[in-house]
Amino acid sequence: MLDYKLLAALAAVVDQQGFERGARHLGLTQSAVSQRIKLLEARLGQPVLVRAPRLAPTALGRRLLEHARQVQWLEHDLLEQVPALGESKQRLRLAINADSLATWWAPAVSEFCARPPILMELLVEDQDVALKRMRDGEVAGCICATPQPVQGARVHPLGSMRYRALASPAYLARHFPRGPSPEAFRTAPVIVYGPDDRLQHRYLALHGFREAFPHHLCPSSEGFVRLALAGMGYGLIPEQQVTRELEEGRLVDLDPGRHVEVPLYWHHWRHGGRTLDALTSHLLATARQWLAPLDDG
Amino acid sequence: MLDYKLLAALAAVVDQQGFERGARHLGLTQSAVSQRIKLLEARLGQPVLVRAPRLAPTALGRRLLEHARQVQWLEHDLLEQVPALGESKQRLRLAINADSLATWWAPAVSEFCARPPILMELLVEDQDVALKRMRDGEVAGCICATPQPVQGARVHPLGSMRYRALASPAYLARHFPRGPSPEAFRTAPVIVYGPDDRLQHRYLALHGFREAFPHHLCPSSEGFVRLALAGMGYGLIPEQQVTRELEEGRLVDLDPGRHVEVPLYWHHWRHGGRTLDALTSHLLATARQWLAPLDDG
Repeated sequence: MLDYKLLAALAAVVDQQGFERGARHLGLTQSAVSQRIKLLEARLGQPVLVRAPRLAPTALGRRLLEHARQVQWLEHDLLEQVPALGESKQRLRLAINADSLATWWAPAVSEFCARPPILMELLVEDQDVALKRMRDGEVAGCICATPQPVQGARVHPLGSMRYRALASPAYLARHFPRGPSPEAFRTAPVIVYGPDDRLQHRYLALHGFREAFPHHLCPSSEGFVRLALAGMGYGLIPEQQVTRELEEGRLVDLDPGRHVEVPLYWHHWRHGGRTLDALTSHLLATARQWLAPLDDG
Repeated sequence: MLDYKLLAALAAVVDQQGFERGARHLGLTQSAVSQRIKLLEARLGQPVLVRAPRLAPTALGRRLLEHARQVQWLEHDLLEQVPALGESKQRLRLAINADSLATWWAPAVSEFCARPPILMELLVEDQDVALKRMRDGEVAGCICATPQPVQGARVHPLGSMRYRALASPAYLARHFPRGPSPEAFRTAPVIVYGPDDRLQHRYLALHGFREAFPHHLCPSSEGFVRLALAGMGYGLIPEQQVTRELEEGRLVDLDPGRHVEVPLYWHHWRHGGRTLDALTSHLLATARQWLAPLDDG
């Protein structure tokens, strides 16, 4: 089979009369579209486009476009008979940090996705990986704590999530009978999301504690809460993830009144298409229901 | 710095008078220990052990062991002053499937980990990756749905988790006003954990439905439940993860009485040390509180 991604890039650039508009039409970056056309030309050993006096296909390019149209029509017929085949085109690929996914993300976007149904492919990634996926064009948007956009993307502050140091009452009675102290911090088991999670260090720094501490590693938001409820450690948990456990006293503050705030930003491709733009407007309007205002936002 | 992992392998084999016992002492597989000693010999260009008439270090091996002991004593002194440094030795590295971590895992092991504190490094992996990590010696145990052990490991059936097809009442009213039907399955958005998740297919096969269906992808147990609660799709959710949401009617059955069972097995290294053996006994005794009996168990 031919590589139809390459033909689709050619068709979009010719139809939309430009690389930038063609890329926007496909929901790709301009550089991805140019690379696809270069690759097509490299494979064929001949140009498929002339850039001047105006953007137009070469004879070979025209023949390819004709073929691509035929295939599109065949697909069109097929889709009418097998509509589910078409859905992958509508699926928005986004990288979301685990704690957002475990809390406010679904209620914030559900109305937007309801009708006509918009399908999402969500990736759970910490921020460095999420931004790398943005850069590589693997996701159209991401939520992370970094305010610097990658090239070709825009970034918007959404608000911040509040984390509190929480544990089960039995755990606190055993490990912190006299409240937070350097002695207790040295020996009380902590739950940490993963080796790159610095929240616990930020929290302990508030207490002036900068030594090592024993910890479990648990890279699952829900698993993290379950370990805390089971009394295996204390940990920094998003307040809104455990509203009920706090009300019922199944989780209690190690340190009432103290918390750590984590800012969240929405990154999205600049030319990611209408759906992505609409999602951006929707998020900016709704996220504040779940997130605290940012100092800089 | 020298690679002390290699020296530790040499010391264990000499002290325990055998590769198998040395490996058990270190909580490694025998093949990992042999590889380390081979690597050490390859780096030095000389043997460090003679195998016959009895296992003994060569002159070079003895010099290395002497150095290793000195370093161990220095470390011993250091650990007395900085106890937290020693904790990583006690941390058990295990791969657990996301849904177990989101439900029964923490209550099942918390008592075992309580005193003396045992720390865990948990990896969230689907089963193929989990077994690969077992094979590579990266984790000492894993929970997955496969009954076949990897080489050097044992496997024990734990029980099964029950999954039900659940959604919000508003979602059901909109997408399944007349209950399950092929027409509804063709258009109603589904939530699927990831591309390798076949649970939804197993469920639809119970209805004789084998066509494509529109779906979101959400590789987070908690995110999955949040999407369902927000009405973005229906999906197969472990019953015990949402006891409360079911009681309160925030999630309801698409198909009351029907469910899919997923068997779970505990895989662990055969010579993984006393802590791992004790965890195995503990799991086998407690898991039945949370899991249904397996047909074959």
